Amino acid sequence: MKIAVLPGDGIGPEIVAQAVKVLKALGESFEMEFAPVGGAGYEASGHPLPEATLKLALDADAVLFGSVGDWKYDTLERALRPEQAILGLRKNLNLFANFRPAILYPELAGASTLKPEVVSGLDILIIRELTGDIYFGQPRGVRECPDGPFKGQREGFDTMRYAEGEVRRIAHVAFQAAQKRGKRLTSVDKANVLETFQFWKDIVIDVHKEYPDVALDHMYVDNAAMQLVRAPKKFDVIVTGNMFGDILSDAAAMLTGSIGMLPSASLDANNKGLYEPSHGSAPDIAGKGIANPLATILSAAMMLRYSLKMEAHADRIENAVKAVLASGLRTPDIFEEGCVKVGTEEMGNAVVKALV
Amino acid sequence: MKIAVLPGDGIGPEIVAQAVKVLKALGESFEMEFAPVGGAGYEASGHPLPEATLKLALDADAVLFGSVGDWKYDTLERALRPEQAILGLRKNLNLFANFRPAILYPELAGASTLKPEVVSGLDILIIRELTGDIYFGQPRGVRECPDGPFKGQREGFDTMRYAEGEVRRIAHVAFQAAQKRGKRLTSVDKANVLETFQFWKDIVIDVHKEYPDVALDHMYVDNAAMQLVRAPKKFDVIVTGNMFGDILSDAAAMLTGSIGMLPSASLDANNKGLYEPSHGSAPDIAGKGIANPLATILSAAMMLRYSLKMEAHADRIENAVKAVLASGLRTPDIFEEGCVKVGTEEMGNAVVKALV
Ligand SMILES: CC(C)[C@H](C(=O)O)[C@@H](O)C(=O)O
Ligand SMILES: CC(C)[C@H](C(=O)O)[C@@H](O)C(=O)O
Repeated sequence: MKIAVLPGDGIGPEIVAQAVKVLKALGESFEMEFAPVGGAGYEASGHPLPEATLKLALDADAVLFGSVGDWKYDTLERALRPEQAILGLRKNLNLFANFRPAILYPELAGASTLKPEVVSGLDILIIRELTGDIYFGQPRGVRECPDGPFKGQREGFDTMRYAEGEVRRIAHVAFQAAQKRGKRLTSVDKANVLETFQFWKDIVIDVHKEYPDVALDHMYVDNAAMQLVRAPKKFDVIVTGNMFGDILSDAAAMLTGSIGMLPSASLDANNKGLYEPSHGSAPDIAGKGIANPLATILSAAMMLRYSLKMEAHADRIENAVKAVLASGLRTPDIFEEGCVKVGTEEMGNAVVKALV
Repeated sequence: MKIAVLPGDGIGPEIVAQAVKVLKALGESFEMEFAPVGGAGYEASGHPLPEATLKLALDADAVLFGSVGDWKYDTLERALRPEQAILGLRKNLNLFANFRPAILYPELAGASTLKPEVVSGLDILIIRELTGDIYFGQPRGVRECPDGPFKGQREGFDTMRYAEGEVRRIAHVAFQAAQKRGKRLTSVDKANVLETFQFWKDIVIDVHKEYPDVALDHMYVDNAAMQLVRAPKKFDVIVTGNMFGDILSDAAAMLTGSIGMLPSASLDANNKGLYEPSHGSAPDIAGKGIANPLATILSAAMMLRYSLKMEAHADRIENAVKAVLASGLRTPDIFEEGCVKVGTEEMGNAVVKALV
């Protein structure tokens, strides 16, 4: 089993180191190969996704990813900025299905800005399409405005689009995920305004015929943003496009108040995947040894479950994380009175020790 | 002063009736002319925005709008569905600047799903561009996918676009609104992915030169959705495009837990405007006499302030609403133990009585 390990920028290297340590402690012999990505890729070879890094990711069975981005790259032209690496990996590896669970651990209920009764026990799964939509649609750019009251001026433009097969495959993924959970799927669209999402909705309704055991409903994206704030526990699985999924999955993650705990998986059609924490590179705390490594460690568990088919090891890691939380250890981002404050490395060590 | 009154569907007629009653009680002689819109427009003349209704709105000094939509129109083809009326009014009246305040009245702090310390005293203003973006961009539709791995299949597509002048004028509106408030403006974009919003960001930065007294910052839309949940009080004024504004303004409204209280204004370049509650037509409670009319009454106050230049009357209405809340009257949507539950009409009467 070959794992491409791409630590990236900011806190990426610190948190990935802890996940690697946990993987090594499982007693399997993974082949782990490291490569620079994001700002680190740019420093190493002038591009956020160096050719050798992409090749490694393509050859591996799974990719463990830290995080990319730092203010110091903000002035680079867009094509060279760190986040292009993650877009490039998604596209080149065909990682069309992004799984973003938003789970509130009972021990961390106080961390949420929402009232405990609204979020305690929260366990929803957002499935975001990740290789289509306005993220990659062509044409795009800046041109002369061709018509209307601003004709002749410059205008910025992009193309939103979804092909039938693209919607079908993510719908299948979502229905199957719902079958394994509460059997309820909410498809989020903006069919009242966008042709793309009327098209999306019609296809989801069609695919539903193959999953009669799953209850399907449809919600406009603006309403979904409201319902996530109002009554998030009413959701089970949400499926939506790349752009709406970007916004809603971050909002859902923040409902828990502990985004430092949330893993994510981005899968292709064969369950090869890229695994990364839901949070960003946090350059403000990089190198201080205080970042929370648990989202990355839990991402490694997802990797074992989805790509490497080592379900038992995934369970071991997840149980170890629960045990560590129960024992009261907390990194500063999730610290509460009465707990024991620890750093990145101590937290990683505690998870290793808690593996049974 | 001529006001076009468009009650619409669902609870629209009931809540608009209360706002009209309050306007009449001010002691001015407004000319108010009623016309059907939305589902009611479709019933009356086969189109959600009948020609006579549009003409009335174009001729009037301001438009007071209730709400449109009902499940029974869901099966109509898109062009005939109620919400097309609101899109048509925005476009034909050039209502490019949408003001959506999210204010938490101290008396209603308990209604929020967020912890009191996170939202008490919340007072933010979202300014959403309302006539551009992917809402109206052409081309759009369903076509044969021209390239890529899904070539030859059907695909749905839309065009996101913003011309320079469109961004400039909404930026001016936003900077000027910020000058009248806390002098802080957050421009929300997705410049790391979308050409349209890199373009948007560059122009906002340029317009900022004319408003050196306003502090400007930029935030990606996914992060903005998170920060609204994490620390909404950190915002003062937010400006963003039509699509992102649709999502964020609804999320912000729901933070207050009392969307039945929130008015909105949609203005053209000369401060002619359409005024409507932020909530929808709520067909489930229509006709029961329990809908909260306060958002519509407060929308009428915004109309007096922005379009009719009757600031003193606007203050009178807003103070009357505050007095009624302080006296403990509540419609069911905002009811709490210890308050007095009233219906739509009683609430409207109470506001009239509280006018001083
Ligand atoms: C960095 C950015 C391009 C990316 C996205 O918008 O997809 C990020 O926000 C994410 O959600 O992984
Ligand atoms: C009804 C719909 C077309 C509309 C929109 O998306 O703008 C509504 O959600 C709104 O925000 O006024």
